[in-house]
Amino acid sequence: MQTTEASFAETLSEAAADAERMLDACLPKPQGAPGEAELIEAMRYAVMGGGKRLRAFLAMETARLFDAPPARGARVGAAMECLHAYSLVHDDMPCMDDDDLRRGKPTVHKAWNEATAVLAGDALQTVAFEILADPATHPDGDVRARLCLRLAQASGHAGMVGGQAIDLAAESAAEPMAPETVRKLQQMKTGALIEVSAEAGAIVGGASHDEIGRIRAYARALGEAFQIADDLLDVTGTVEEVGKAVGKDAGAGKATFVDILGIDGARARADELVSTAAAELSPFGARAGMLIAAARFVVDRRS
Amino acid sequence: MQTTEASFAETLSEAAADAERMLDACLPKPQGAPGEAELIEAMRYAVMGGGKRLRAFLAMETARLFDAPPARGARVGAAMECLHAYSLVHDDMPCMDDDDLRRGKPTVHKAWNEATAVLAGDALQTVAFEILADPATHPDGDVRARLCLRLAQASGHAGMVGGQAIDLAAESAAEPMAPETVRKLQQMKTGALIEVSAEAGAIVGGASHDEIGRIRAYARALGEAFQIADDLLDVTGTVEEVGKAVGKDAGAGKATFVDILGIDGARARADELVSTAAAELSPFGARAGMLIAAARFVVDRRS
Repeated sequence: MQTTEASFAETLSEAAADAERMLDACLPKPQGAPGEAELIEAMRYAVMGGGKRLRAFLAMETARLFDAPPARGARVGAAMECLHAYSLVHDDMPCMDDDDLRRGKPTVHKAWNEATAVLAGDALQTVAFEILADPATHPDGDVRARLCLRLAQASGHAGMVGGQAIDLAAESAAEPMAPETVRKLQQMKTGALIEVSAEAGAIVGGASHDEIGRIRAYARALGEAFQIADDLLDVTGTVEEVGKAVGKDAGAGKATFVDILGIDGARARADELVSTAAAELSPFGARAGMLIAAARFVVDRRS
Repeated sequence: MQTTEASFAETLSEAAADAERMLDACLPKPQGAPGEAELIEAMRYAVMGGGKRLRAFLAMETARLFDAPPARGARVGAAMECLHAYSLVHDDMPCMDDDDLRRGKPTVHKAWNEATAVLAGDALQTVAFEILADPATHPDGDVRARLCLRLAQASGHAGMVGGQAIDLAAESAAEPMAPETVRKLQQMKTGALIEVSAEAGAIVGGASHDEIGRIRAYARALGEAFQIADDLLDVTGTVEEVGKAVGKDAGAGKATFVDILGIDGARARADELVSTAAAELSPFGARAGMLIAAARFVVDRRS
């Protein structure tokens, strides 16, 4: 167990370094007319040098599971990180969650201004699709179009953005949110992008329909476990550990898994989800070891 | 000439109706949890029932020029209108151009709030890629991936969003912008999406490399003419005609073609561009008549 944990931490950190290198290669260099260079600097600031790169890891590791060339998995992973970073830049804005800190650094609208945050987020979303649609990601256009379609479905009104809209509406609602609505919103807001990250890696690796189904079920369980862990950290973590404000979800009247299940219930549910995730990957044997370790990791992490 | 104008107006209005029907079919229906339905309402409000649909017209008419089935051109046109609408929703926000009116209606952040404007714009960008990546747009995945790639290139940091960033920076700059920078920013901010709308129609119609080159050159000239006409309307039009605030570009210190060329010089340049646009399409003969009429129309319009 200790060995697996150490080895997983190493794999995650190597994947993060690979993702970082690919992001650096895929993102534009800060240059151009006044305004243009600042935009690109803000885009890079938002996406480079931070985070666990869980989404990139999932894309790269599932691509590897199906023997895709590493650069393909890394490109898909970079696209997912750009999409994720765009959502954070917009979510942090004053009219949304109003956060000053992200990964321990000032958020984009604090480091620049709100207009730059809107535009940098917009352009990061575009870059995500640009990376996936580029022939360098896969020689087969059908694969590239499928990657674009799945990312759009997971991140738009029916996925991430829709989840954020439900979450914001919940803050001003008179009634607390029903447990099934909390689960739905979390699945949309956070789970959908985690799920599609793993799925996209499988797609770029040429996985079969059934294999993709298992990868999705694995990632769905991991995504819910991830969100439960996030809610637990908001209650039990410190600013230093988490790198952003804590305790504010409850204050803002946000519905969380901890509200529904309690701290012990949430921990138990997270453990159950880790088992589900592992079971889905059992047909892949030892080669799926790092993906299974990832499910354990998202629950045990302290930040 | 009268006949062509009347017939063009009819064609444009039919194209707008086709685009409207396709948008209605492609956009989600307002339903779901609280917050989700409002998001979709705001998306529909921003994109439906308004505008000349110039971008959709260009996509549909170039697709028709290469004998594409009408639904394919209409889907590409609907995607371009979603992308355009997203940019307007974000540009109208208080931290950007701060406009209360758009097409004579309250802007999204006035009708709802800023958070909804951010999210509705974000989701409309996603829908644009979702439409293009969907097999209903073209059976060949290579074509769909190419459409996604070209839209990303035209609308991201190197295109529309980059142009908006340069424009915002120009407002706070001490020095007036150099004429070549004004032309570059206008080409990025407005021209790139107009150009890719026409190009995407040609791509979905299976045009050759050389044919696409001509369509792009045509649309580039039309796009610049369009922007010059916009700048002229800001100086010479009324709120009633234009449907949004006028005279504010000069007040905000925005660099326009009228600043550089003067009113008469701008009109002369626009006429020159109409001729250039027409010349590029001469190999296509009478079948390109409506596209040529469109170039004339963007210069002569009063709104």
